[in-house]
Amino acid sequence: MKILVINSGSSSLKFQLYNMDNMHVLAVGLIEQIGESKSRLKLDLPPTQTEQTITAQRKVGDHETAITIMFDLLKEHHCLDDVNELAGIGHRVVHGGESFSKSVLIDDHVCKIIKALSPLAPLHNPANLIGIRVIQKKAPKTPQVAVFDTAFHQTIPPKGYTYGLPQQLYDENRIRRYGFHGTSYSYVSKQAALHLGKDIGHTKLIVLHLGNGTSATAILNGNSIDTSMGMTPLEGLLMGTRCGDIDAGIIFYLARETGRAIQDIDDLLNKQSGLKGICGENDMRTIIAKAQTGDSTARLALDVFCYRIKKYIGSYLAALNGADALVFTGGIGENANIVRELSCHNMNSLGIELDPQKNNNQGTQRHIREIQTTGSNLKILVIPTNEELEIATQVLEHIQE
Amino acid sequence: MKILVINSGSSSLKFQLYNMDNMHVLAVGLIEQIGESKSRLKLDLPPTQTEQTITAQRKVGDHETAITIMFDLLKEHHCLDDVNELAGIGHRVVHGGESFSKSVLIDDHVCKIIKALSPLAPLHNPANLIGIRVIQKKAPKTPQVAVFDTAFHQTIPPKGYTYGLPQQLYDENRIRRYGFHGTSYSYVSKQAALHLGKDIGHTKLIVLHLGNGTSATAILNGNSIDTSMGMTPLEGLLMGTRCGDIDAGIIFYLARETGRAIQDIDDLLNKQSGLKGICGENDMRTIIAKAQTGDSTARLALDVFCYRIKKYIGSYLAALNGADALVFTGGIGENANIVRELSCHNMNSLGIELDPQKNNNQGTQRHIREIQTTGSNLKILVIPTNEELEIATQVLEHIQE
Repeated sequence: MKILVINSGSSSLKFQLYNMDNMHVLAVGLIEQIGESKSRLKLDLPPTQTEQTITAQRKVGDHETAITIMFDLLKEHHCLDDVNELAGIGHRVVHGGESFSKSVLIDDHVCKIIKALSPLAPLHNPANLIGIRVIQKKAPKTPQVAVFDTAFHQTIPPKGYTYGLPQQLYDENRIRRYGFHGTSYSYVSKQAALHLGKDIGHTKLIVLHLGNGTSATAILNGNSIDTSMGMTPLEGLLMGTRCGDIDAGIIFYLARETGRAIQDIDDLLNKQSGLKGICGENDMRTIIAKAQTGDSTARLALDVFCYRIKKYIGSYLAALNGADALVFTGGIGENANIVRELSCHNMNSLGIELDPQKNNNQGTQRHIREIQTTGSNLKILVIPTNEELEIATQVLEHIQE
Repeated sequence: MKILVINSGSSSLKFQLYNMDNMHVLAVGLIEQIGESKSRLKLDLPPTQTEQTITAQRKVGDHETAITIMFDLLKEHHCLDDVNELAGIGHRVVHGGESFSKSVLIDDHVCKIIKALSPLAPLHNPANLIGIRVIQKKAPKTPQVAVFDTAFHQTIPPKGYTYGLPQQLYDENRIRRYGFHGTSYSYVSKQAALHLGKDIGHTKLIVLHLGNGTSATAILNGNSIDTSMGMTPLEGLLMGTRCGDIDAGIIFYLARETGRAIQDIDDLLNKQSGLKGICGENDMRTIIAKAQTGDSTARLALDVFCYRIKKYIGSYLAALNGADALVFTGGIGENANIVRELSCHNMNSLGIELDPQKNNNQGTQRHIREIQTTGSNLKILVIPTNEELEIATQVLEHIQE
């Protein structure tokens, strides 16, 4: 049984084809710079097929063309003979607002709600919806499922999602904390419970999703009770180019004292801040390399990044009243030893003790690792995330219902 | 030896006269609505004198007139025969930027710096400076000392004060975390160390200053290492009318989707948000009373207020790697049992256990109380703050140098 996972962005299309009988990936593809004069295509056929990477450059005018090319490529490389071979298609959708607390079979009503939620994610929801609409035309009989980045966090209680703002802004504009990376948290928390040999219904976890975007989540008995991203993905931990937590007064100061327009400040905080703002780089590997050769701004960026993680760990330990495990995931969380080390440094009085040797023993396989000392109260886990597999699994659940 | 403490606001003058030989307060005064058609005067003569309160309404055109009235009142009630009887005068100054890490004897150079720092505190520093200038005229021979709200936090290390913003904004505009309520933290942390019978140089404290403005500070060996207020007093805990921590993306959303001007959003977040925003009230006593009779928005405001305190406690436990004591101070911190209870609720796995009976046993005197259980790892203290006495004490230190 084959399931296709689609992530349709404003100028890109990512896709991943699964054989759900054995959970194997049959193909991973990316079409970038859609609508520009030259678009880039990339298709990976993993070792379970004949391992190879196909790349090409050609004009891809719109998402409809991109999706035609996707199906042509999958056919050409014998991954999928016909669209109707698909048992289901899963779409990543960024913002489900308060309307979706889990994934949902897509129909016209669902599309209307996704569209209506666009003000909350003006760059993402419309692009996600284009992907859905085009696929609906190409594969009208295939069940399609929307999987929302926000859904996992809908269990956060009012004291966790309410901002200190006039209630009218919640009543009329739905301004509240939503949180993101929900698909990753859903996947990783189940993996953590399995690894710990515990019922997820009796598990306390603090998960750090550290990738291009970074966030932290407190998970009580399988439910998110708090997360660091807010109404938008700008709040919380330091990110590649996003500022994370900041004094709102700084925005007013910048407008008043430097005469910047609000749109420019928006751009500044989203695209020129974070790690890049502090040290000029937003790739953690480069920053770590620079910090290790004595670059002081790279070191500062790394220190701020990890200090904020440490504070969120403490904060969520308080929210959860302790935890069974601390979980690092996402590209940085899985690969950057030094980030894990600094984030857990000097936390023994909270029951957190990282074993430097285990932490540094990276291994080559993508598997779950424990990196705490034998004396540590909390387990410290490194768990590779897999958002595409989580989406495919949620599609499967809908088909089998 | 008499010392006068002055807090000169934009339309108010607060003053307190001390006899430093016995630390007794000789007079406490307030002149409000300076410059309006009717100003209000209030003078308290504490029990150490003949206890009485004098109130009056009359026009007070400017700060110079207010200060003349202040000296007249003090003479009339036999608190101070002549200005030259004062050994020193202490001025509360809000923003010392990075220029002042402790209080300082005022001279022209100091005044210039206070003025130059005005963009960081546009409402406060100019008003503070008016008070200084007028007093300099009235008492040209008396040593005057500036005591800054920000000074205590100048020990915060770069990883704690650096925002995730372009470094240029720090280099050119000094955008960083400064923190406030420093005079209160200075006073309370010394009191706490005395009470614990510990050298402050070997003490870890988390102090919650909960008054009209609210903030939390992590104090390591007498030095602030982190605090919840930021470059401005808008960041951090929920306050009476200020939003505290918020997703900066909400500001851009409000501008984009509701067409509000940036000045209106500034006003909204500073004056119509916080407790008042959530439930329409900003007096904690009213909110508690309403919550106890089942008012759901009052209850939500209380819950958000305390949940955020709880998270900062956890965060600073991580920053400090444990603590000797948690200290509640400020009007709310000293008086609102339910706030202390909810903030410490369900924190036993972090070594925090509040004793409900001790917590509720308010007492009548302003003294230090311990309210933890016998099994609690951390002491939980209620310490009445005294910012005016701290200012007077710092003036005394300068005089005696």
